[in-house]
Amino acid sequence: MSYPDEPRIPSPSGRGVVKELYLIRHGIAAEPEQYSHDRDRPLTDEGKRKTRKVAARLSELNLHFGLILTSPLLRARQTAEILIAAGLSSQLEESNDLAFDGDIQHWLTWFEEWQQKGSTRLALVGHEPNLGNWAEILTWGEIRGSLVVKKAGIVGLTLPETGSPVGRSQLFWLASPKLLFLA
Amino acid sequence: MSYPDEPRIPSPSGRGVVKELYLIRHGIAAEPEQYSHDRDRPLTDEGKRKTRKVAARLSELNLHFGLILTSPLLRARQTAEILIAAGLSSQLEESNDLAFDGDIQHWLTWFEEWQQKGSTRLALVGHEPNLGNWAEILTWGEIRGSLVVKKAGIVGLTLPETGSPVGRSQLFWLASPKLLFLA
Repeated sequence: MSYPDEPRIPSPSGRGVVKELYLIRHGIAAEPEQYSHDRDRPLTDEGKRKTRKVAARLSELNLHFGLILTSPLLRARQTAEILIAAGLSSQLEESNDLAFDGDIQHWLTWFEEWQQKGSTRLALVGHEPNLGNWAEILTWGEIRGSLVVKKAGIVGLTLPETGSPVGRSQLFWLASPKLLFLA
Repeated sequence: MSYPDEPRIPSPSGRGVVKELYLIRHGIAAEPEQYSHDRDRPLTDEGKRKTRKVAARLSELNLHFGLILTSPLLRARQTAEILIAAGLSSQLEESNDLAFDGDIQHWLTWFEEWQQKGSTRLALVGHEPNLGNWAEILTWGEIRGSLVVKKAGIVGLTLPETGSPVGRSQLFWLASPKLLFLA
């Protein structure tokens, strides 16, 4: 098994690898009034600036993702491209599972296959309330609407080494841009 | 109603105030072998250093607590004193509810009375697994063991304006020292 994009991370038990999933919400986007389709709303200048700062902070933490999977909506796609430009991954793919009508079950099937590739860190770029809901499904097995995921905010989850991550993952980060860098 | 220690924070609805609870775990402490009583273990030099950096970062974020309530164990007490020294609060009290055998129900009775004083931000300094368990009880109503609270790490919760916070609070921050400052 090879890890082309990231170092092998020993688990606390010394067996296998710790798998981490990062959920990143798109940055501040233009108001809906100016665009006939919601999917075409771009990041604002402030949204780009804050997202770049978050990306720089994550890069300082030596984070590197085997893949960034993004919602196809423009504001998410632009957020993902900023993460790529900051060197956080060299791989970017779109997934309809991360759009508003996306389905975590469908994504889980994809994920089961993807994780066979041996990469230890995956980032998803998408929207609220979906990202917070997915984080709750993965940690508690159900949606409670109790997580606050800010724009350009990040959620960090440790996934179990084997088997389904649903209700079996651990939450280790939940951060807003404000928490991640000095204003 | 007056807020001697902190500004009045308008809630998103414009009614009342947003109440925030911060759970802060003690920093790195000396190994148990050197101390006959667990409660006497002090912070190590590294523990003090990292805790001071976390405190400085929270201070940069303009956080201010109406009160810091701490476990009476030395490593928690020292952590709380570092937060006080950083100007994060002018009030420090010990509570046995935050020791290992502490009881959230007993603390909730205290909290109900305390919040009548009108302060909007409270910090608790204590131990794992208690702090993570309390955060889960407040957000999801039950303990699932799914939150990772690192030493000198912080959990941020928004509590409901009125009524019991159990199962009705929202998690907005979960951060390790590593996430909060550059190493």
